[in-house]
Amino acid sequence: MNFEITHRDGAARRGRLHLAHGVVDTPAFMPVGTRAAVKGITVDRLHALDAQIILANTYHLLLRPGDDLIARLGGLNAFMGWDRPVLTDSGGYQVFSLAARRKLDEEGATFQSHLDGSRHTLTPESAVDVQARLGPDVAMMFDECPSWPATHDAAEAAMTRTLRWARRGRDRFLALSTGRAADVTRSNPAQVQFGIIQGGIYKDLRDRSVGGTVEVGFDAYAIGGLSVGEPVDVMYDLVAHTAPQLPDGQPRYLMGTGMPDDLVESVGRGIDLFDCVLPTRNARNGQLFTREGPLNIKHARYADDPQPLDPACGCETCRCHSRAYLRHLFLSGEMAAGILNTLHNLHFYLDTMRQIGKAIEFGTFETFKREFLHTFSRRLPA
Amino acid sequence: MNFEITHRDGAARRGRLHLAHGVVDTPAFMPVGTRAAVKGITVDRLHALDAQIILANTYHLLLRPGDDLIARLGGLNAFMGWDRPVLTDSGGYQVFSLAARRKLDEEGATFQSHLDGSRHTLTPESAVDVQARLGPDVAMMFDECPSWPATHDAAEAAMTRTLRWARRGRDRFLALSTGRAADVTRSNPAQVQFGIIQGGIYKDLRDRSVGGTVEVGFDAYAIGGLSVGEPVDVMYDLVAHTAPQLPDGQPRYLMGTGMPDDLVESVGRGIDLFDCVLPTRNARNGQLFTREGPLNIKHARYADDPQPLDPACGCETCRCHSRAYLRHLFLSGEMAAGILNTLHNLHFYLDTMRQIGKAIEFGTFETFKREFLHTFSRRLPA
Repeated sequence: MNFEITHRDGAARRGRLHLAHGVVDTPAFMPVGTRAAVKGITVDRLHALDAQIILANTYHLLLRPGDDLIARLGGLNAFMGWDRPVLTDSGGYQVFSLAARRKLDEEGATFQSHLDGSRHTLTPESAVDVQARLGPDVAMMFDECPSWPATHDAAEAAMTRTLRWARRGRDRFLALSTGRAADVTRSNPAQVQFGIIQGGIYKDLRDRSVGGTVEVGFDAYAIGGLSVGEPVDVMYDLVAHTAPQLPDGQPRYLMGTGMPDDLVESVGRGIDLFDCVLPTRNARNGQLFTREGPLNIKHARYADDPQPLDPACGCETCRCHSRAYLRHLFLSGEMAAGILNTLHNLHFYLDTMRQIGKAIEFGTFETFKREFLHTFSRRLPA
Repeated sequence: MNFEITHRDGAARRGRLHLAHGVVDTPAFMPVGTRAAVKGITVDRLHALDAQIILANTYHLLLRPGDDLIARLGGLNAFMGWDRPVLTDSGGYQVFSLAARRKLDEEGATFQSHLDGSRHTLTPESAVDVQARLGPDVAMMFDECPSWPATHDAAEAAMTRTLRWARRGRDRFLALSTGRAADVTRSNPAQVQFGIIQGGIYKDLRDRSVGGTVEVGFDAYAIGGLSVGEPVDVMYDLVAHTAPQLPDGQPRYLMGTGMPDDLVESVGRGIDLFDCVLPTRNARNGQLFTREGPLNIKHARYADDPQPLDPACGCETCRCHSRAYLRHLFLSGEMAAGILNTLHNLHFYLDTMRQIGKAIEFGTFETFKREFLHTFSRRLPA
């Protein structure tokens, strides 16, 4: 994996991340394709939106259709018909948030499928094996993400276990990639592995997590355990504290974030990669992003509004349709509502990232950020 | 409205129907966009599939968002962001199949909305007015479609009432289009109106219906009241009996039909226009059409089948995805399942119509029909 930083503007970085299936221009946002599909949109449209990398969830794919089946069909890219990079998480977060009867110990996690009750195990090693079969460009290490709020003791315990799991997961990954272990189908031999920093909201724990995880040595590092309920100021502060400690020459990924202004704020603190379900999930709920902030298309004020959703936007939804029509589709429960809303929200996120990137190239990121934050309101209008 | 028949092959006709929003090459299939949206697909994709005309339902649009609102926004084309022809039915069929507490008399129908219980009336005149506001290129007259099976007496009563309604509907349409009545917004001043032949399965009634409806004089004629439960052979026989009695120089529309082989059989009996929910509805249920016949993508035999749905098909779904992936999407309830399946089924229908048209041009329709019917099976494989 090669990562070039082409421009810097304060702590913000503009770069090119070279992965097995292509180049990702950073800062980049990864649409979430939980079950090997980004909800509401097809791969053809993801191409048209110029999404350069998407995320899929190991937990969901392990349960259905299964990592063995995906490996038999050539790995995630072949399975999905998507020819660009893919990143998979390790499944840890979903085991804690979705699975039934989960049991966690030093070895790993055992749990029951939320689909059919079948029993499964994920360990630092098996999460590597599953992701080897799935074959994304980037595999994430298996970590323990404490729920929020967590005491210092609880956050410390999860962080130190995550460090031990980092070593085990990295060892297994290297055993597979060097051929020392050959008992697992590797659908993508050029796969790389990212480590995850934990430590909750405690800076001393974040510091120790950075030190230990970097000592293990991964291809890049993610900040996990944020965007889990803590106030945004706390998140920004922890990102500002943690990101600069990570190796400068490697990409930094803030997991599960966030609102559009969170992306701008975090790029300004040195983050290169993001993923979040907000643009796609909110689209299906009728919450649509514009430069002024979100709007709720259900609102009666849009009933006969002939304007596009966002007059400043160039996406298909805004080029072809009025707010009145989008409201009608949403209230009627038409599939086109989900499709067009998803298209718009993903376009908004990806376009915001492109604007951020350009601003860094031109050395105008601070101006861009100030104007963006001045215009954008997180709150829905009354 | 201008209709040129450019080629004939037996009873089959190849033509060009010039409507306010463009040309329709006949024989043509109209995808159904009940609520001003074709389920599972956006207008951009309908363009890419080269759908030349779509159908929308007056009953649904009258109830939500309302014909007044659509008129304020410039009519159906502007409302939907669709720049090609639209046909609306008159609402009669849905009043009988969907509305609660419907009451039918010589004046028309009163009914309660299936959405909110609000009371509405549709008469031969008001159905014209509603469609004037909606503004499709083609408006259908208001008719009474008896349920199936119907006795000769019941079918005769509905047919003779439909004839009286034909006169009233045509008078109202002409009053609006000549400016004698100016109390209704006309969103599409070039709108034309089609009459509807009824008479159930009784040839003597069909003959009288043709005579009376043609005497009233419409821009074209539709055969209604078929595809309502009768055996296909009965339908084919009635189409063969009725179509040749309709004016040769005007397009003939068989309403609500059908399976792919029904289209081929009916073109061979002189039909030019079709509409049906089958390709879109069945797509959402996982039933996909191929040259061999329908297949059910849920079937376990497709679990790790790397082949495209239909190796002979050039649609996006077949170019980009395997049966295994489509099955996974369907079983996971992913929106992409509905989108990709709809895309494929509509492509299949529209492409079949294009092949039919080319065969008529080349004088090879009988050969095409024989080969199509030899290969295509209506039954799902076991």
